[in-house]
Amino acid sequence: MLEEDLGMGDVTTALTIPATTTVEAEIIAKESGIVAGIEEVLTLLESLNLQTTALVIDGSKIDKRTTIMKIAGNARTLLSIERTLLNILSRMSGIATKTNRIVNKVRHVGYKCRIACTRKVAPGLSYFDKKAAMLGGADTHRLHLDDLVLIKDNHLAVTRDIRRTVEEVRNTVSFSKKIEIEVSTKSDALEAAEAGVDIIMLDNFSPQEIKETIALLRKKELQESVLIEASGGINEENILEFADTGVDIISLGEITDSVEALDTSLEIVKVLKE
Amino acid sequence: MLEEDLGMGDVTTALTIPATTTVEAEIIAKESGIVAGIEEVLTLLESLNLQTTALVIDGSKIDKRTTIMKIAGNARTLLSIERTLLNILSRMSGIATKTNRIVNKVRHVGYKCRIACTRKVAPGLSYFDKKAAMLGGADTHRLHLDDLVLIKDNHLAVTRDIRRTVEEVRNTVSFSKKIEIEVSTKSDALEAAEAGVDIIMLDNFSPQEIKETIALLRKKELQESVLIEASGGINEENILEFADTGVDIISLGEITDSVEALDTSLEIVKVLKE
Amino acid sequence: MLEEDLGMGDVTTALTIPATTTVEAEIIAKESGIVAGIEEVLTLLESLNLQTTALVIDGSKIDKRTTIMKIAGNARTLLSIERTLLNILSRMSGIATKTNRIVNKVRHVGYKCRIACTRKVAPGLSYFDKKAAMLGGADTHRLHLDDLVLIKDNHLAVTRDIRRTVEEVRNTVSFSKKIEIEVSTKSDALEAAEAGVDIIMLDNFSPQEIKETIALLRKKELQESVLIEASGGINEENILEFADTGVDIISLGEITDSVEALDTSLEIVKVLKE
Amino acid sequence: MLEEDLGMGDVTTALTIPATTTVEAEIIAKESGIVAGIEEVLTLLESLNLQTTALVIDGSKIDKRTTIMKIAGNARTLLSIERTLLNILSRMSGIATKTNRIVNKVRHVGYKCRIACTRKVAPGLSYFDKKAAMLGGADTHRLHLDDLVLIKDNHLAVTRDIRRTVEEVRNTVSFSKKIEIEVSTKSDALEAAEAGVDIIMLDNFSPQEIKETIALLRKKELQESVLIEASGGINEENILEFADTGVDIISLGEITDSVEALDTSLEIVKVLKE
Amino acid sequence: MLEEDLGMGDVTTALTIPATTTVEAEIIAKESGIVAGIEEVLTLLESLNLQTTALVIDGSKIDKRTTIMKIAGNARTLLSIERTLLNILSRMSGIATKTNRIVNKVRHVGYKCRIACTRKVAPGLSYFDKKAAMLGGADTHRLHLDDLVLIKDNHLAVTRDIRRTVEEVRNTVSFSKKIEIEVSTKSDALEAAEAGVDIIMLDNFSPQEIKETIALLRKKELQESVLIEASGGINEENILEFADTGVDIISLGEITDSVEALDTSLEIVKVLKE
Amino acid sequence: MLEEDLGMGDVTTALTIPATTTVEAEIIAKESGIVAGIEEVLTLLESLNLQTTALVIDGSKIDKRTTIMKIAGNARTLLSIERTLLNILSRMSGIATKTNRIVNKVRHVGYKCRIACTRKVAPGLSYFDKKAAMLGGADTHRLHLDDLVLIKDNHLAVTRDIRRTVEEVRNTVSFSKKIEIEVSTKSDALEAAEAGVDIIMLDNFSPQEIKETIALLRKKELQESVLIEASGGINEENILEFADTGVDIISLGEITDSVEALDTSLEIVKVLKE
Repeated sequence: MLEEDLGMGDVTTALTIPATTTVEAEIIAKESGIVAGIEEVLTLLESLNLQTTALVIDGSKIDKRTTIMKIAGNARTLLSIERTLLNILSRMSGIATKTNRIVNKVRHVGYKCRIACTRKVAPGLSYFDKKAAMLGGADTHRLHLDDLVLIKDNHLAVTRDIRRTVEEVRNTVSFSKKIEIEVSTKSDALEAAEAGVDIIMLDNFSPQEIKETIALLRKKELQESVLIEASGGINEENILEFADTGVDIISLGEITDSVEALDTSLEIVKVLKE
Repeated sequence: MLEEDLGMGDVTTALTIPATTTVEAEIIAKESGIVAGIEEVLTLLESLNLQTTALVIDGSKIDKRTTIMKIAGNARTLLSIERTLLNILSRMSGIATKTNRIVNKVRHVGYKCRIACTRKVAPGLSYFDKKAAMLGGADTHRLHLDDLVLIKDNHLAVTRDIRRTVEEVRNTVSFSKKIEIEVSTKSDALEAAEAGVDIIMLDNFSPQEIKETIALLRKKELQESVLIEASGGINEENILEFADTGVDIISLGEITDSVEALDTSLEIVKVLKE
Repeated sequence: MLEEDLGMGDVTTALTIPATTTVEAEIIAKESGIVAGIEEVLTLLESLNLQTTALVIDGSKIDKRTTIMKIAGNARTLLSIERTLLNILSRMSGIATKTNRIVNKVRHVGYKCRIACTRKVAPGLSYFDKKAAMLGGADTHRLHLDDLVLIKDNHLAVTRDIRRTVEEVRNTVSFSKKIEIEVSTKSDALEAAEAGVDIIMLDNFSPQEIKETIALLRKKELQESVLIEASGGINEENILEFADTGVDIISLGEITDSVEALDTSLEIVKVLKE
Repeated sequence: MLEEDLGMGDVTTALTIPATTTVEAEIIAKESGIVAGIEEVLTLLESLNLQTTALVIDGSKIDKRTTIMKIAGNARTLLSIERTLLNILSRMSGIATKTNRIVNKVRHVGYKCRIACTRKVAPGLSYFDKKAAMLGGADTHRLHLDDLVLIKDNHLAVTRDIRRTVEEVRNTVSFSKKIEIEVSTKSDALEAAEAGVDIIMLDNFSPQEIKETIALLRKKELQESVLIEASGGINEENILEFADTGVDIISLGEITDSVEALDTSLEIVKVLKE
Repeated sequence: MLEEDLGMGDVTTALTIPATTTVEAEIIAKESGIVAGIEEVLTLLESLNLQTTALVIDGSKIDKRTTIMKIAGNARTLLSIERTLLNILSRMSGIATKTNRIVNKVRHVGYKCRIACTRKVAPGLSYFDKKAAMLGGADTHRLHLDDLVLIKDNHLAVTRDIRRTVEEVRNTVSFSKKIEIEVSTKSDALEAAEAGVDIIMLDNFSPQEIKETIALLRKKELQESVLIEASGGINEENILEFADTGVDIISLGEITDSVEALDTSLEIVKVLKE
Repeated sequence: MLEEDLGMGDVTTALTIPATTTVEAEIIAKESGIVAGIEEVLTLLESLNLQTTALVIDGSKIDKRTTIMKIAGNARTLLSIERTLLNILSRMSGIATKTNRIVNKVRHVGYKCRIACTRKVAPGLSYFDKKAAMLGGADTHRLHLDDLVLIKDNHLAVTRDIRRTVEEVRNTVSFSKKIEIEVSTKSDALEAAEAGVDIIMLDNFSPQEIKETIALLRKKELQESVLIEASGGINEENILEFADTGVDIISLGEITDSVEALDTSLEIVKVLKE
């Protein structure tokens, strides 16, 4: 990230700041929210020999004007990476803040279901986006494609047969993996449960359809052995209707693909050595 | 990006789809907007030997349900990268769409000023975010830190003297670079213009303060030789007030740091060879 | 791998073979066994524009003197990579052959348990070693450390309390992961099962101790809900005693850490163009 | 190597061990042998800020239960790399142990010839495998393809003429390189010696054929100026028959391609800070 | 660079110098000139834990036998990188020395024009070559292709129309970039100035033609608003004729593509610890 | 190299040349000399899908205005890499031309000794610089530090004893390596020859001293078994005096560290498709 931003080096800083100048600086939140990215920023700063003290920990609630961390060290180094580190903090904190607001909305009325993110992340930033969502209270769901077997509509568009596909997968995949399947009808959900999957993702089901599916599985005594995940068309507005259906997991793309950065800034508070 | 997403490979696809199956698929927009990222996605798909035809070009306006591109080729390869390519398209198109809405708002009432993005991008995605903003009609501003000399508040916190700093920079930097300075008061703007910078960034000025600054420069016959950029506290809501001041450039962080992804999906439309 | 082997290039080939010479060559097995690594070698050869035809598929049984593949193309390129590709094939086939011999020994007397490999691989070759074991009939177990949660003795040396550790893990880990725990006593196995883990690894248990543990779990009606894995001190010699205990999974380090390469060679059979 | 093993990070350790916990641990040999890989493991551990003390040095003979090194530091870091470092130590020590047994067998009866390894290594592990063989007492032979000129059967399959090939090579290669040639008949050995190579590799010669070849060269007064290497079909069983022929070098593929790992383990002996 | 030079490691040093030996050494100039590369060499040495004290600073004039820096630390490390660090210092100092001689020749007779380098550098060494030229007193010109817009003959060979090309560029490029154009006739220079470029490069103009072009621009009152750069066919011999024309910038390829290294050597002056 | 030069892409070309324009271009020599770098440039061009035909081969003598190669393909791609490929060709041809002039000077008067380059190359360009020297007729000497054992003054500054150092090296280094030693007195040369090294480098010996050393070795009947290399203080001017001494090898740093680029240019000769 640094390399991308720097090009051949920060020409302005090289021209205006002596190589030996050291300063003290603070990173300040300019909005309230849930902070995330501190661990990542510390790693970056320490690798560049900047002395850093975090005043809050990842996942904590901060107010506007909270000092997030204090940094001391070489002025050129610090100014060269200022924007990169603020971008990390702002994006991750923006994700954590939104996630937390959604999770709290659901918990507030007493629902226990997990709120999960999806793989709809900024390209290349999966680790950062999912870590931030986790700090906001979400389940990270798959980190890699190989984290669990997730048979989706496009796989079934090729294999066409739920039962046979699940059986073949179970015979060949390692015992260490769970198997999840995405279905679009109640009868497919039933077929999947009978085939013995671990998790069923109900894709674009209405709250009413979800309730009916769960009732059907309960009647067939299959509900205990599978987890039910609702996905598709769910957002901060309508999430309580989905939480009310009794699903185990609700996943939302917007946690990570529609992010509003939390505004932060870096301010030099003292020149230690000219 | 692919590597990050794939982990040790797409276990589901490997288990369910034969290695030789080929399919035909389409990428569909599920919302209207300005499309961006087609060139990047084509490069990715072609590097993986998938036959691709783009039906629209980057920067064009698309409606909901527009087919963006058709892809034919190995099913395993395609399904393994489905999410990565949708993430690129959705983020870039989301940025282009928002940028375009803002630029049109300004052009609609006849203002000529450039709308520029900032370096507040998703970390590591500077190229993608700025390219998308450009397709939406924005000026990319600096791509690297070394694109122009931009003397900011934190540099002046160390050097303390605008005139001397500008002079030293002008004597040492290559003739091929422009020099911009960020100021926070009218008198600093005047000092900067007198010192001969190419561009002055008025940081967190109100529209009224901007007008006064421009008037002051005009009075001193300095306005012709510098470009004026307004930055800080500007958003889609209040942008017309800033456009009305007569500034040359308006820059907004939210174009790239508060992105709403444009929803897209990939659908297999035919199995060509089992 | 190629880079490591080549240094500044294959000086002998450059000095003796004209740049435009093309040849036809064959890769021959010099021992019987199960072949593995063909897919990897094809990928390598095709990336270097060598025409390749595999005459057998990965996982098939081959006799001494079987021709595994035919290759045609630039002689310099082929001779420069000869050793690297034989090393891939020989190691992977050696692993597949040994694994297959062990799996067959267990299947021959009718046991159903899975034979799994461990993370005791050649450093950096996890993908190759586990793929080869899979082709020989083994379960790959974890590919990464993050594939499942596996609480080991060294984790418990820090946390000290099985029940509390499992509970904390279950509350924080994604629903998409299974939880396994390594235990060294029957009572720990019982505690783990009661805490609700998905898999219990009995570390260095004798066959008799394994049988007693399974009996204990069955009595507590916990056996249905967990998988039992035996690990430690198991080898090709004594594996039937462990298979006889009724465990679900038997894992052996020696599949991947004590490998005898299957001898293969590359022979130029015709000079196509001098 | 670490990256390959870790995936997105060691989820178990992250979930069970606090970020600030520090521990003291020991690496223990569970079998006797010659230890190798200590230098490589120290480099790895030190790069991760773990305090390490090696109690034995590379190449020394160790007994079962010998403590190889003591490590103190962050528990998460240590547990995340435990398997990678044991894999390095176990493979390298396994190679050193086997090599040493073979070299001792030859020295025991008084033969002076060098025992050399070949390029039959685990793909990508050439440096590690050859370093380990050297610690066991073997000659590393070529490390890269460009270490010496080694004209093999497949080169001669294209050039067809030993004398002309050697001459052309000698005229073009740097004076800093030795020239070796692989031959399969006594007369080819003679032709090679007359052409002035530095080393002749007798490929798949029986001990009797080797003796005859050496006698022939001696008769022609060519033996003094070349080194003779025997290669092919030689193993721990039959090596003395080859040593007895008077060759200068004996090379064996099995030193590095048929490795039995030396069993080692890492044990946490104290929690220093919870 | 180090990696390229080292291959599998410095075999001589490993064989002759004990791993724990420490020494004190000096880098000595064997010719007088302007030193450059000290900062780069310090970075390299410090990254390898060698204690270094520079006795002169980059850009200073040094005499034959000047001690440039003192180094203390591990002997193996130092000897392994000796050649790489001398190569950096010698090439960069050679460039700085030549550049300085040319700049001084021009300044000596009172000309103010900037002496600039071109992109004719050793491939891959742009940063090093241009940094050295800057230390010798030259303007670095473009560091990347994207530093400014420079429309060259080959671009115009495709677009054919100066005015239209410049207009299109100005409408699409960021306000942060300058626009330069290369022309080969006086009338093209005039057309470019009228089209509003920032810099005009007169390619292969004779001194007389340059004077006439400047006179023409002055007459049209366009000279104030553009910088004039002379390029092509200029060297240390004839540079004063070009400086005399009144151009703003003179660029020479030979500063970086015809370099005579400044001779330096590294001498061990004391063995600190055997 | 390309990446370094391009930064975020060639902004000028992107702004002026349509993405689909194709052109035909030629690379022209603007000076006579020995051409080198064609193979490297072809590899680069082909990797970018540009159709290339070389009209001359590496190592051939070319006149001013010779067309070296013809290129056809995408205009944007070609213009983006124009400078990088000319830099490769010009530097390599410059080295080959100078080397060839020196070698011819020596051959012209009938001397047989090899002219060798040293490791004094542009940092990171060892492969390119030595390949070019070879095409000019020089011996490449060491490509890596591990190509042969070369015991230098700085090694002896630590070990102090020639005989013991050589013996230790011979006992530990692979039989596949030659051993060279650098000496600064006649008696050291004798000691080295008696210790059995393969090559002796006489460092900074005058021609007279070299003759005396060779006479001394001949007298002791050691001359046949070692190669003698003269190095230090030798250049194009004085080389015949050194050739006349009867040494086997003369090495010169200036072949690769004091390079005058051979001027080349790329000209678009036709626009194939707008």
